[in-house]
Amino acid sequence: MAHGYNGKVLRVDLSSGKISVDEPDEVCYRRYLGGRGAALYYLLKEMDPGVDPLGPDNLLIFAPSVLTGAPIQGASRFSVACKSPLTGTYGEAEAGGHWGPELKFAGYDAVVVKGKSEKPVYLWIHDGEAEIRDASKIWGKPTKEAQEGIREELKDNRIRVAQIGPAGEKLVRFACIVNELSDVNGRGGMGAVMGSKNLKAIAVRGTKRIDIKDPDKVTALVKWFNQNYMKNADVSGLNRIGTSQYVLALNESGALPTRNFRDGVIEGAEKISGETMKETLQVGQKACFACSVACKRVVKVDGPFKVDSAYGGPEYESIAALGSCCGVTDLKAVVKANEICNAYGMDTISAGASVAFAMECFENGILTKKDTGGIDLRFGNAEAMVKVVEMIAKREGLGDILAEGVKAAAERIGKGAEKFAMHVKGKEIPMHEGRWKTGVGLGYGVSPTGADHVQMEHDPCFEEKGFFIDQLNSIGILEPVPSLDLGERKVRLFTYLQHWWSLGNCIDICLFTTAPARVWKIPQVVEMVNAVTGWDTTTWELMKVGERATTMARAFNVREGFTKDDDWLPERLFQPLEGGPLKGTKLSKDVYRQAVVAYYQMMGWTETGVPTKAKLEELDVGWVADKLRK
Amino acid sequence: MAHGYNGKVLRVDLSSGKISVDEPDEVCYRRYLGGRGAALYYLLKEMDPGVDPLGPDNLLIFAPSVLTGAPIQGASRFSVACKSPLTGTYGEAEAGGHWGPELKFAGYDAVVVKGKSEKPVYLWIHDGEAEIRDASKIWGKPTKEAQEGIREELKDNRIRVAQIGPAGEKLVRFACIVNELSDVNGRGGMGAVMGSKNLKAIAVRGTKRIDIKDPDKVTALVKWFNQNYMKNADVSGLNRIGTSQYVLALNESGALPTRNFRDGVIEGAEKISGETMKETLQVGQKACFACSVACKRVVKVDGPFKVDSAYGGPEYESIAALGSCCGVTDLKAVVKANEICNAYGMDTISAGASVAFAMECFENGILTKKDTGGIDLRFGNAEAMVKVVEMIAKREGLGDILAEGVKAAAERIGKGAEKFAMHVKGKEIPMHEGRWKTGVGLGYGVSPTGADHVQMEHDPCFEEKGFFIDQLNSIGILEPVPSLDLGERKVRLFTYLQHWWSLGNCIDICLFTTAPARVWKIPQVVEMVNAVTGWDTTTWELMKVGERATTMARAFNVREGFTKDDDWLPERLFQPLEGGPLKGTKLSKDVYRQAVVAYYQMMGWTETGVPTKAKLEELDVGWVADKLRK
Repeated sequence: MAHGYNGKVLRVDLSSGKISVDEPDEVCYRRYLGGRGAALYYLLKEMDPGVDPLGPDNLLIFAPSVLTGAPIQGASRFSVACKSPLTGTYGEAEAGGHWGPELKFAGYDAVVVKGKSEKPVYLWIHDGEAEIRDASKIWGKPTKEAQEGIREELKDNRIRVAQIGPAGEKLVRFACIVNELSDVNGRGGMGAVMGSKNLKAIAVRGTKRIDIKDPDKVTALVKWFNQNYMKNADVSGLNRIGTSQYVLALNESGALPTRNFRDGVIEGAEKISGETMKETLQVGQKACFACSVACKRVVKVDGPFKVDSAYGGPEYESIAALGSCCGVTDLKAVVKANEICNAYGMDTISAGASVAFAMECFENGILTKKDTGGIDLRFGNAEAMVKVVEMIAKREGLGDILAEGVKAAAERIGKGAEKFAMHVKGKEIPMHEGRWKTGVGLGYGVSPTGADHVQMEHDPCFEEKGFFIDQLNSIGILEPVPSLDLGERKVRLFTYLQHWWSLGNCIDICLFTTAPARVWKIPQVVEMVNAVTGWDTTTWELMKVGERATTMARAFNVREGFTKDDDWLPERLFQPLEGGPLKGTKLSKDVYRQAVVAYYQMMGWTETGVPTKAKLEELDVGWVADKLRK
Repeated sequence: MAHGYNGKVLRVDLSSGKISVDEPDEVCYRRYLGGRGAALYYLLKEMDPGVDPLGPDNLLIFAPSVLTGAPIQGASRFSVACKSPLTGTYGEAEAGGHWGPELKFAGYDAVVVKGKSEKPVYLWIHDGEAEIRDASKIWGKPTKEAQEGIREELKDNRIRVAQIGPAGEKLVRFACIVNELSDVNGRGGMGAVMGSKNLKAIAVRGTKRIDIKDPDKVTALVKWFNQNYMKNADVSGLNRIGTSQYVLALNESGALPTRNFRDGVIEGAEKISGETMKETLQVGQKACFACSVACKRVVKVDGPFKVDSAYGGPEYESIAALGSCCGVTDLKAVVKANEICNAYGMDTISAGASVAFAMECFENGILTKKDTGGIDLRFGNAEAMVKVVEMIAKREGLGDILAEGVKAAAERIGKGAEKFAMHVKGKEIPMHEGRWKTGVGLGYGVSPTGADHVQMEHDPCFEEKGFFIDQLNSIGILEPVPSLDLGERKVRLFTYLQHWWSLGNCIDICLFTTAPARVWKIPQVVEMVNAVTGWDTTTWELMKVGERATTMARAFNVREGFTKDDDWLPERLFQPLEGGPLKGTKLSKDVYRQAVVAYYQMMGWTETGVPTKAKLEELDVGWVADKLRK
């Protein structure tokens, strides 16, 4: 293979202050592509099992992909990965915005950080140069002030800053990394790992563009997208309303996570709907690099909660987590809590879910006003929700406990609190109802990063409803499957889509443009990779990249001691939904258990979920088997 | 899915004389595509395990594919499949020529034959009509006379006839099916099954052309092929010399099967080379439907062996089996034996290998002149070779024993003859040296049809030689592997190529145009399927079709009682080659054993080679698991 694709990876050791550069060969680029693939390559090659996630030995990898920075709708993202301090598993979170492309423009395909700085620093990367700089002036600052501080210090307002806020500095275990103040690598505590390394930010600026082998093809694809994306009902909704378009639709289906997943509907859902937000609080919308969809919202509130529009506005996940999941329908409160999360650098899903957990504990007498510092922490108390989110960010009072995540908090609280802790492997369940979207429920259980909605977000073909996404034909899903069923046909659908979504996190393309219900068709994604790289890749090779990354992540977790028993769901998902159109709907433990084993078998793993050496060889990463044996 | 692809399958019950038509739905067409896929669908759905391969309950399926009959180079083939009377496993053989396209033109995508006629008959299919006709006048006739008889009776010289010769009538267990007198479904005794059903021939004539959804795309592909195929050294050699171009090259490498695989070189190889044949005996060349390569040879000999040019000329496999493998370098004798095989309807590989087996038995005193009827059956005795081939076809003397195949013959002969029986699962090993082409060696062992060279014909990337086929990049084979190694990287290469070659037998496309070393690139095959059908298939879906068919064939064999122990090679392949450049080269039993298990694991089967229910579901054929359980 000699297509001439090459690039550089920046290596930074914060303990020694040493900076160096890797130049991986073309085969390495093609085998891993970037993002999740590149991160797992480094994590498995270079990191031993058993390291303290918040210690200096944890590697922290920032990785866009071969595609990132191409002027293609959706090709704007980057992954951050490490051993997660929230779960102890492989941890990864992706973000859109502009930071990933900017890193590519600055001449790097990834940044691999290890060690720990003695004092707060930030990394400054610009057009092939990199330096570690003092961050004492911005340490402790919310993200907006910190970003301004860096831009002022370096005298360039076009610098892109990926940073932590005070929550990351205080090692909140679900602290996130924020770029452009509202684009976040949200889940799994990537920000806490930055904090543990005394790394406040990575500021980047690049003036080159990426090399594209077939610019005409890219132009044609971009033109096609622009001519077609508004014809897609879902994506045109993303343009008009944003992701919060799903609030009302899910509430109508009875699948809007409500009161810590006890219910699937909330009275007054329209008050926190995307439509309401657009009519009342919205002052603008934002797009990631090169994207026409512009799904992001910008909101502003003057009172009673003052919200700075610099921090954007809440996504669907944030509205559901901080809103319905806490029984809250006060949109201004939701928007305020979202702003706190972006300013302090915290994952809105885990933050909202932690408050919801505490609320249910409170309603059941497991927590009392003595524990909450006098707050009446009942479902629906909007002011209490905002207050506790802030307490978590500052690690104050009950917030200090909740900052460990619901799993650890439940263990600390005791008194049966764990039955209200909605998590898998320590990561709080996101805002998709796994009893209704049964494939998503399975995905929560077997996701290598703990409960996650970027395995497969929805079940895209429902037999009873006559609903089927034709695009799935191209990967051999030819018929719909029963909606509430979790039999082997659903497991197959999940497994194939997991490959595709996993690929999406290796090429760091936005799933709102690429998931099979959206705009880009599967063969078009193949075309765009080839147009950018000059390769002759195929859907087979790309699906295998996705499968490879999932299996490498599994190997990472096996090496850390995780077993089949950890692929289990919170008890509540096996209990009936309490109200709404889906009242009584639940998963069966037997069916779920069989689905997990079927998934392992479809993945070519052992019946206990361990990738065999032969399977790793089949995925062209036989070397991972040696890492597993150690 | 609603692209409107549809078609008809002809059902013929020879016991009752009933003829009917199936109209499979579009999903069925897309899931199986035709050929091997379609055959296994019917065999597993409708046939119980344990049937006598030569009894009326064996189903015999003639299946071209969705692609066959499109005017595309290579899209000319069809598969014949049943339970093999030679092996007791799934049996399948493909042929080029014109019969497959003609069946499509006559309005059918497949013919499924069951039962047994009381007296000899043939089937006459023409433009949507089908009838069973008396064959008493052509029964017992060689293929040329029988073909003429049918064409005269039906008064149409353009009728295409797929038929058996006297060997098939006499149930020679490696009898083949012959169309156009020299295009054969060669292996596994498909002709014996026709004979057992008293079915002499299927004559077809169609005047319609197949529906092509995107004719411009087909035209563009055809044009591209014509502009490029002579640039491919291998394929231009097929045009100039034919498959016999490999005789000298393999002899030079030390891998030309010689004297029953004892050696890899033969003195005087140039006398049976393609070049010599072209210069001395060749009177023409032939092409399959729509093909520009015209790799087939036509030869004529006046004496001492008179050879009728109507029967074409020998391929590489035939020259090696009837020539070097028997120690014979008399080209005229080889050509004569080839003519006998085509006239009597016998597989040249098994015929030659059976003679070679008998010769080695004779040289070792296991067979004597008493057994041979006075023939001095030493390696290199050309006249004896021709005589014994004829005796097999007529089931005369020793020929009657050899007509059972080398496995059964060795059991009957006893005295240690089995150590000279070069077969897997009863099927004679074809003319590729499995000790040198280690992936092919593995393929012999795990092939569902017994030793077969249409699993993967060569190892296309040799590390030491710096030889690598760039086309493999597109399915994720990014680096060469060591040539003589049979470690997991080679198993991976084999497994991926087996998917591709298995797909080739589902879409019945010629591997001389489609194998990764040849002309069509992998993505072009995807394009041609889409151009013909109107689908949006991908390399992923097509590779999965290939994997599906291999796994269904495995399930067929498991159901028939075959186990891991049957995936074993003849002892000789674990012994060193005795001469030539590869002297001393052998396979290791331990390495082979590990390779087989690694292959099972890469296929997602159990460690004993049984497809799990989950794997079958993953391949969208969960129903096969029910068939396995019975």
